[in-house]
Amino acid sequence: MFVTMKPHATDAEFEAVVERIRSLGLTPHPISGTERRVVAVIGHTSGIDPDDFAVLPGVAGAMRVSQPFKLVSREVREEDTVIDVGGVPLGGRDIVVMAGPCSVESREQILETARAVRGAGAVFLRGGAYKPRTSPYEFQGLREEGLELLALARQETGLKVVTEVMNTETVPLVAEYADVLQVGARNMQNYSLLERLGAIDKPILLKRGLSATIKEWLMAAEYIVSKGNPKVALCERGIRTFETMTRNTFDINAIPILKALTHLPIVADPSHGIGLRAHVPAIARAAIAAGADGLIVEVHPRPDKALSDGHQSLTPAEFESLMRQARVIAGAVDRPLA
Amino acid sequence: MFVTMKPHATDAEFEAVVERIRSLGLTPHPISGTERRVVAVIGHTSGIDPDDFAVLPGVAGAMRVSQPFKLVSREVREEDTVIDVGGVPLGGRDIVVMAGPCSVESREQILETARAVRGAGAVFLRGGAYKPRTSPYEFQGLREEGLELLALARQETGLKVVTEVMNTETVPLVAEYADVLQVGARNMQNYSLLERLGAIDKPILLKRGLSATIKEWLMAAEYIVSKGNPKVALCERGIRTFETMTRNTFDINAIPILKALTHLPIVADPSHGIGLRAHVPAIARAAIAAGADGLIVEVHPRPDKALSDGHQSLTPAEFESLMRQARVIAGAVDRPLA
Amino acid sequence: MFVTMKPHATDAEFEAVVERIRSLGLTPHPISGTERRVVAVIGHTSGIDPDDFAVLPGVAGAMRVSQPFKLVSREVREEDTVIDVGGVPLGGRDIVVMAGPCSVESREQILETARAVRGAGAVFLRGGAYKPRTSPYEFQGLREEGLELLALARQETGLKVVTEVMNTETVPLVAEYADVLQVGARNMQNYSLLERLGAIDKPILLKRGLSATIKEWLMAAEYIVSKGNPKVALCERGIRTFETMTRNTFDINAIPILKALTHLPIVADPSHGIGLRAHVPAIARAAIAAGADGLIVEVHPRPDKALSDGHQSLTPAEFESLMRQARVIAGAVDRPLA
Amino acid sequence: MFVTMKPHATDAEFEAVVERIRSLGLTPHPISGTERRVVAVIGHTSGIDPDDFAVLPGVAGAMRVSQPFKLVSREVREEDTVIDVGGVPLGGRDIVVMAGPCSVESREQILETARAVRGAGAVFLRGGAYKPRTSPYEFQGLREEGLELLALARQETGLKVVTEVMNTETVPLVAEYADVLQVGARNMQNYSLLERLGAIDKPILLKRGLSATIKEWLMAAEYIVSKGNPKVALCERGIRTFETMTRNTFDINAIPILKALTHLPIVADPSHGIGLRAHVPAIARAAIAAGADGLIVEVHPRPDKALSDGHQSLTPAEFESLMRQARVIAGAVDRPLA
Repeated sequence: MFVTMKPHATDAEFEAVVERIRSLGLTPHPISGTERRVVAVIGHTSGIDPDDFAVLPGVAGAMRVSQPFKLVSREVREEDTVIDVGGVPLGGRDIVVMAGPCSVESREQILETARAVRGAGAVFLRGGAYKPRTSPYEFQGLREEGLELLALARQETGLKVVTEVMNTETVPLVAEYADVLQVGARNMQNYSLLERLGAIDKPILLKRGLSATIKEWLMAAEYIVSKGNPKVALCERGIRTFETMTRNTFDINAIPILKALTHLPIVADPSHGIGLRAHVPAIARAAIAAGADGLIVEVHPRPDKALSDGHQSLTPAEFESLMRQARVIAGAVDRPLA
Repeated sequence: MFVTMKPHATDAEFEAVVERIRSLGLTPHPISGTERRVVAVIGHTSGIDPDDFAVLPGVAGAMRVSQPFKLVSREVREEDTVIDVGGVPLGGRDIVVMAGPCSVESREQILETARAVRGAGAVFLRGGAYKPRTSPYEFQGLREEGLELLALARQETGLKVVTEVMNTETVPLVAEYADVLQVGARNMQNYSLLERLGAIDKPILLKRGLSATIKEWLMAAEYIVSKGNPKVALCERGIRTFETMTRNTFDINAIPILKALTHLPIVADPSHGIGLRAHVPAIARAAIAAGADGLIVEVHPRPDKALSDGHQSLTPAEFESLMRQARVIAGAVDRPLA
Repeated sequence: MFVTMKPHATDAEFEAVVERIRSLGLTPHPISGTERRVVAVIGHTSGIDPDDFAVLPGVAGAMRVSQPFKLVSREVREEDTVIDVGGVPLGGRDIVVMAGPCSVESREQILETARAVRGAGAVFLRGGAYKPRTSPYEFQGLREEGLELLALARQETGLKVVTEVMNTETVPLVAEYADVLQVGARNMQNYSLLERLGAIDKPILLKRGLSATIKEWLMAAEYIVSKGNPKVALCERGIRTFETMTRNTFDINAIPILKALTHLPIVADPSHGIGLRAHVPAIARAAIAAGADGLIVEVHPRPDKALSDGHQSLTPAEFESLMRQARVIAGAVDRPLA
Repeated sequence: MFVTMKPHATDAEFEAVVERIRSLGLTPHPISGTERRVVAVIGHTSGIDPDDFAVLPGVAGAMRVSQPFKLVSREVREEDTVIDVGGVPLGGRDIVVMAGPCSVESREQILETARAVRGAGAVFLRGGAYKPRTSPYEFQGLREEGLELLALARQETGLKVVTEVMNTETVPLVAEYADVLQVGARNMQNYSLLERLGAIDKPILLKRGLSATIKEWLMAAEYIVSKGNPKVALCERGIRTFETMTRNTFDINAIPILKALTHLPIVADPSHGIGLRAHVPAIARAAIAAGADGLIVEVHPRPDKALSDGHQSLTPAEFESLMRQARVIAGAVDRPLA
């Protein structure tokens, strides 16, 4: 259950609500970062009447939320969340395309890619500075130098920057350089990281875990939002199944399901979703047709020389072709590309 | 390896090829039902040079096929298979929509549905007369009476009929009534049934097994084609994963992968693919955007009264709305609805 | 709900019960092959009181069954089903071991294997005469000749024979030769085959489908039992997961879960369950420790020459070692090997 | 490839090896924390002859390792790793049992449980002080107070303490109290945490990720070992599949596969592996029969009042019964309980 205070409710009125919750044997969980004071009521609330709270002074209303995820639920907020990323709206009518290499590898590589993807119509540059790799012996990213190169590319092209943050220690550093901080699939349930990201004022792109259920994914988003950061977008990147012809199975079902369950924006990652260069455009088209609010696509000037994910990275020319196709499908669902 | 004879090759020439194959310790597997005589060479052919056969009298050519599926592979046949279903091409440029109830329940129900789906633009009527049900205590279909009702609805509306065949015994009966015989997911590897269907001259719609890999699915199609029936279309209907919010996980990746691997037509079943009425249109749009050649959609005049699959069946009005959306996406990929 | 008649209930009394069920808007489903007449009541029975039936003349009792599977459930029958296979009890205290090649390949191969496995302590000979193969180009079994060879081996060794039946047409033939008819994983939901097997008086070994849930598996068993054949044993052979190091993932959990839910015997197939010869004994030990009533193990005199499944077949010497280990674990759970 | 230096190799000799690696276009990766200096050679080494290194001064030997995991592989180290946990060997002949509540809840609860499990024969106390929970609104553990209570229970009972560490920040604190630090399933690929744990001198219990492949799991262990901490044990706790009757699917196959691939000890967690109290003992027996080196079992004095995992926690009496069964199976595989 959620109790929402009136805009000018006093501290004493808020405290009285908290006290009432405790007196019923329940736990009050104040939610940070919302415009009006809200308190979640945790425990067995099935026997409690929301009206018991609604009549208290300073209370605007009380509502039951049937899902275990609360703040990210459409039940709690009906209208879509639109995240303002330095002037670019994510989650609004326009579909946003993010593109760039798996890893930032060099000044030339990132600048060349940034110019190419901007030329084709992307508005965000993606690129990993910190790379979570299955093997400790593989390239782990340029780290801070990578962040600097991303900032340089932003300066040259005007593209917004999205890049992964791997741990709590580097949150301030990554937040200094990035416009959007990405949480990778392997960290989707790294709750210490999620809580830390709930305490900053930057948009977060939360990738789905390798075999996370939709409910677990929304609970992970709830971690961030309940700590005070409502700027969360979700990224579907494929799940693990028995199929071995593709790297992952892109879960197209997740897009309409999420649109119904949550007000957060949904970004699709067709590159990881299928893992084969030739087929990335088909999955990108499908994701837009199903209702995605954005795409994130791996592009590399020379995929065969890439230090990571070369087999699923598009060349700039292939990306341009994908953008043409994406624009047509976006038009067909009446949502122009940003 | 495949050896293809010239159009007017003699029986003696063919026998000489077969003899040559045996003399190399390999097994000849003559393929039925192709225009020209073809013989597959089974065994360890890696050390054999195709030219050893190409020089024999009456031989048009010999080729290696790297995939375990042969006749259904793009390697063997580059151009798309277009199946002529009584004048309606399946697998050509036009996208074909099949619609109707899960089960044929009554004269009124099937006629009302048939008229509604034709009105909205479907060209095939789907409907189960024989229903494979998880429980022996559930409605198993009207059986032959259901087939007669489908035929009646075809007569009244001109729609083509697609319906499931569950066992070898009823193949002749179902083939008498249906324009296309469907193999259900649970029977995808019922090899006796597949072989029997390879011996008839009717199109087959082969659904993917609950957790069949794409390779296994193509091997199942190979069973039918290698027995002499080249008219096989594949139907993606979702796979089994850990996700519990949806009935299945529609494998959107399968569409572009199949388009690359095989020349057979691909039909998408968004109804089983997601299993929730509200979200069927999103998956239908995605499937067309990804390259599907057709859709098969469950429609029932009163889904809440349906004897099976009511939760995933569209009302006629919802289906009309789906068709409008499908037409727009089909236009965007430059493939009109049939 | 189930209504059970008294031993000497009259036809008129039975009809009165059936009529009463119909008058309540429900469907009577008489169960064949049980000692006493039983009728399942299908439909929305939640508002019905079992006592409404219990008071009718000739009725012994009426009970609600919470699971969708009824006759195979422990709710309906508490004591374990023990199947008498020509004097060998399957499902009793003794653990039964079945062993033999994947496919019957020749007179010498099957006789040599039969003698070896009997020598090591097996009481059943397994061997496929009809082989469902993923590829139409692979060895499909010796068919009737294979059945004859199995019968010959039985005659020579006294072993019971278990072999697969692939379709309804060959049920009478296979039933003539086999002591137990096996339904393969790919046919677990071939309902026409299950119904046909419900009409014969031979024990059935029902393998779990590639990705069948435990509930679906028990529903498949229910198909056979509800058609009149109560002699069904279940065979866990591994399920399909994302893990690629093993052929399947042996679902050890299924053993105690099944023991709680059903009274049918459970046989474990470690050969398919892990698919790697070196590790078959470990899984065999685990299955016995978890409560399996039997093992079915692939053994071949020369696994590297086997026409199928050689990589997971044990040599006779390896099987002997497995039997020694199995005997010790069986002793530890106080259940001797048969 | 791995190059191992002789015990008394000089710095100059080591530098010459590193230089030689670089001159071949490869990357040297010195391994910390091993007795002798070892350097991994990363890159395309297929064309390199190990003898090129073996002849250099100070080099003891050079070997190719076919698996992507190196230091944890049996190829690199044949004999089992035995971890000395304050006098208790983990990974030796004796099977070690760890038991205790999911969460430390109170002084009374942890002391009562500790006494009970020691009485029944456990040698480790498990208990979560930091709890990763799917929902931000659920009990997150007593944190440092929980660690203090675990230390108190150790003092009272002599049991060793294993408890989870959730993030890099708390590694020093948890390491101060715990005998073994557990990495939870959700953090298996939290590489920052793994690297941090590679830098301490405490044993680590690395749980398998929810849907981690065996290879990924061994690569995660490689992260820790390659940073200098060789004391890693692996914990199989079930994987995610389509089956819904059980919380997870305990992967019994993983036990013999790991025993063949790695020298690290394997601990089985039947509580999470099946998730149902009644069936935990069957899975515990199976795990020992398959070759596990230890068990970790959830025990709570009053499972129905537990703040987490009550449905899968055993009562002390049930645990005592499990221990009796475990002892018998352990005897049958000739490995006494510690």
